[in-house]
Amino acid sequence: MADGKTTASARRPSGQRRADAQRNMDKILDAGLKLYSSRPGVSVAEVAEAAGVGRVTLYGHFPSRTELAKALMDRAFEETEAAWEGVDTSGPADAALARVVREQWHLMERNRNLRDNVIGDVSPQWLRARHDPILRRIEELITRGRDDGAFRTDLPVSWLVTSLYSLVHAASDEITAGRLTAAEAPEVLVASLRSLYRT
Amino acid sequence: MADGKTTASARRPSGQRRADAQRNMDKILDAGLKLYSSRPGVSVAEVAEAAGVGRVTLYGHFPSRTELAKALMDRAFEETEAAWEGVDTSGPADAALARVVREQWHLMERNRNLRDNVIGDVSPQWLRARHDPILRRIEELITRGRDDGAFRTDLPVSWLVTSLYSLVHAASDEITAGRLTAAEAPEVLVASLRSLYRT
Repeated sequence: MADGKTTASARRPSGQRRADAQRNMDKILDAGLKLYSSRPGVSVAEVAEAAGVGRVTLYGHFPSRTELAKALMDRAFEETEAAWEGVDTSGPADAALARVVREQWHLMERNRNLRDNVIGDVSPQWLRARHDPILRRIEELITRGRDDGAFRTDLPVSWLVTSLYSLVHAASDEITAGRLTAAEAPEVLVASLRSLYRT
Repeated sequence: MADGKTTASARRPSGQRRADAQRNMDKILDAGLKLYSSRPGVSVAEVAEAAGVGRVTLYGHFPSRTELAKALMDRAFEETEAAWEGVDTSGPADAALARVVREQWHLMERNRNLRDNVIGDVSPQWLRARHDPILRRIEELITRGRDDGAFRTDLPVSWLVTSLYSLVHAASDEITAGRLTAAEAPEVLVASLRSLYRT
């Protein structure tokens, strides 16, 4: 209650406090996205350290691992949605798919790794109910290719979507293992998916 | 030292003790293989409980998570090697590959899940140095198909091997998600790999 106990942040105008809070939250999400999409078993303490904020601050924004994981997935979805706006998906579906893979594969790779590494922190139901918007966009593109006669219809569309994510993940692992270069990976993916999808 | 302190097991002839130890080890490895290949984050205590042995007994056989993980991978490799002896890999490589996938896919699925779930307990170097014998057999089959002109040569052979494991894993996840049945999975895999591998 005494003046001497008032902290520096409590003395700031509330607009400034909100701006500080937003900046901390951004730093936490930036660091979390980077760490969680790079390897499993990341601790909240590691995220706080990488973000340069105290653990108390982090828990103030995200009271549990689950809250943090959900916020990371939400941000990843939003970034990916925004990036899709820049990809030309018109014209023949197979050429459109090749453009999508070449331009979006880094985001797909990151999201797939992120998903694998937060899977213990959020329920599969939440992840599914969140309806990964990228997944739906890819499904739409594949469906269009099937309707046009360019893509196969003998396998479930859900399998074709899953194969894409699975091979993106595999290509990412192959880069880590030194068996593909970062430049080769998207071209190997495009060639593989073309073969897998064609009628 | 007093007779009263001699335990039941210490009174048994040593042949009997060795047989008990072997039986406990088998129970631990059976339970471990089942748990570790079903989900990540399995604790050693869970393995002991599922095996019906005490934790002290488990630690007596496997002093660390790493020792247990290595023993599990070793046993998985041995079982898979033994199973390969029953598969006819002669004749055209594409038909042989289809037979391999149909007959071996459950073991491939289990090994891939196991590998993913012990990856934090053993070094990637150990895993690689262990030279998964199945992986080499698949590589030999793909190489034969390439030499015969049946399989594509425009993508690295390592990528074709990785794609197979990756799609096996994906098919396993699709069964869990209820988007493929256990009966459909191997046929979807065969159709996908045929398209992916063909020239």
